[in-house]
Amino acid sequence: MANPIDFYFDFSSPYGYLASTRIEAIAAKRERSVVWRPILLGAAFKITGGQPLPTIPLKGSYAAHDLARSARLLGAPFKLPSKFPIAATAPSRAFYWIQDRDPALAKQVAQALYRSYFAEDRDISNPEVTGNVAAKLGVDKGELAQALNDPAVKERLRNEVDAAIERGVFGSPYIVVDGEPFWGSDRLDQVDRWLESGGW
Amino acid sequence: MANPIDFYFDFSSPYGYLASTRIEAIAAKRERSVVWRPILLGAAFKITGGQPLPTIPLKGSYAAHDLARSARLLGAPFKLPSKFPIAATAPSRAFYWIQDRDPALAKQVAQALYRSYFAEDRDISNPEVTGNVAAKLGVDKGELAQALNDPAVKERLRNEVDAAIERGVFGSPYIVVDGEPFWGSDRLDQVDRWLESGGW
Repeated sequence: MANPIDFYFDFSSPYGYLASTRIEAIAAKRERSVVWRPILLGAAFKITGGQPLPTIPLKGSYAAHDLARSARLLGAPFKLPSKFPIAATAPSRAFYWIQDRDPALAKQVAQALYRSYFAEDRDISNPEVTGNVAAKLGVDKGELAQALNDPAVKERLRNEVDAAIERGVFGSPYIVVDGEPFWGSDRLDQVDRWLESGGW
Repeated sequence: MANPIDFYFDFSSPYGYLASTRIEAIAAKRERSVVWRPILLGAAFKITGGQPLPTIPLKGSYAAHDLARSARLLGAPFKLPSKFPIAATAPSRAFYWIQDRDPALAKQVAQALYRSYFAEDRDISNPEVTGNVAAKLGVDKGELAQALNDPAVKERLRNEVDAAIERGVFGSPYIVVDGEPFWGSDRLDQVDRWLESGGW
């Protein structure tokens, strides 16, 4: 069995959302699986001096335009959320807690969370909203609410973020194929070719 | 005759160089012409807080890897210059001075300057080097050396940079097709589709 693809993303990252609508299909073509790895980019931004793209002068208005245009091209529903960016702590903790119980369900929840935020303008930084999205897919809302404040779950997310930064992850999406890193949703065509050819 | 495509770039920008190897072929397919517009990104970086990508922690080493990989995919010769970034004043002034005399020659000189810097590691920020590159294509080296210090030529470049920033240009490459802006060499496939379809 070939190595799985690592898909790092921040739930607050619109280009991460765009990539999330394509990554599984690209991997499936080459019979690869994808490990979804939500992270909190704030820690990496402290190192790179980065800022969320849509908040930067000039670049910000371009990014809003580019995101809408790229989403249309992909056929992905998209609306820049009225609250942006957000701290993605609640959805990220929820993801890992669910993943430890049911990995396939965790991906479905991640996709639903991303859609809620970037297509339906629901503030998933609110633990209540994250809980509602997960509950619709069968997650026990009460148990999840407790998990979001569980020190072990908090540490789980911290460890994932630390490991990602240790590995050099500094943006979202950030995809690793057989050790080869690709940053940005605009590198998915290269990811596709890399999977096809094994590199160039 | 359809509108020409505006191709903004900084001679110090490696992704601008990659785009320069593709832009004419993409335009020619749709019978469009390209207006090359070298600028100095430093002025825009003051507004956006931007820095040359390869100088940023984490992102820098990724960018060096990504550039080499993208260049291989395009079949473009590439070597990150030993002196990087540079102030692209001399090659940019040279370009506009030549363009006012012979637009087709100016493009050839621009392509040769980019190749000299990003494939042959020659420091084109040195007016002598820029002069030698242009002279090989038939430009009078003595006249060019004088032009690089001519207040009118200096002002010509300043005006071009001001007009670009006024228009919202903040990066390199930055391509405008019928009023539609595209930032980054990774948007050239979208530029291609936009030219084909008139938008989406």
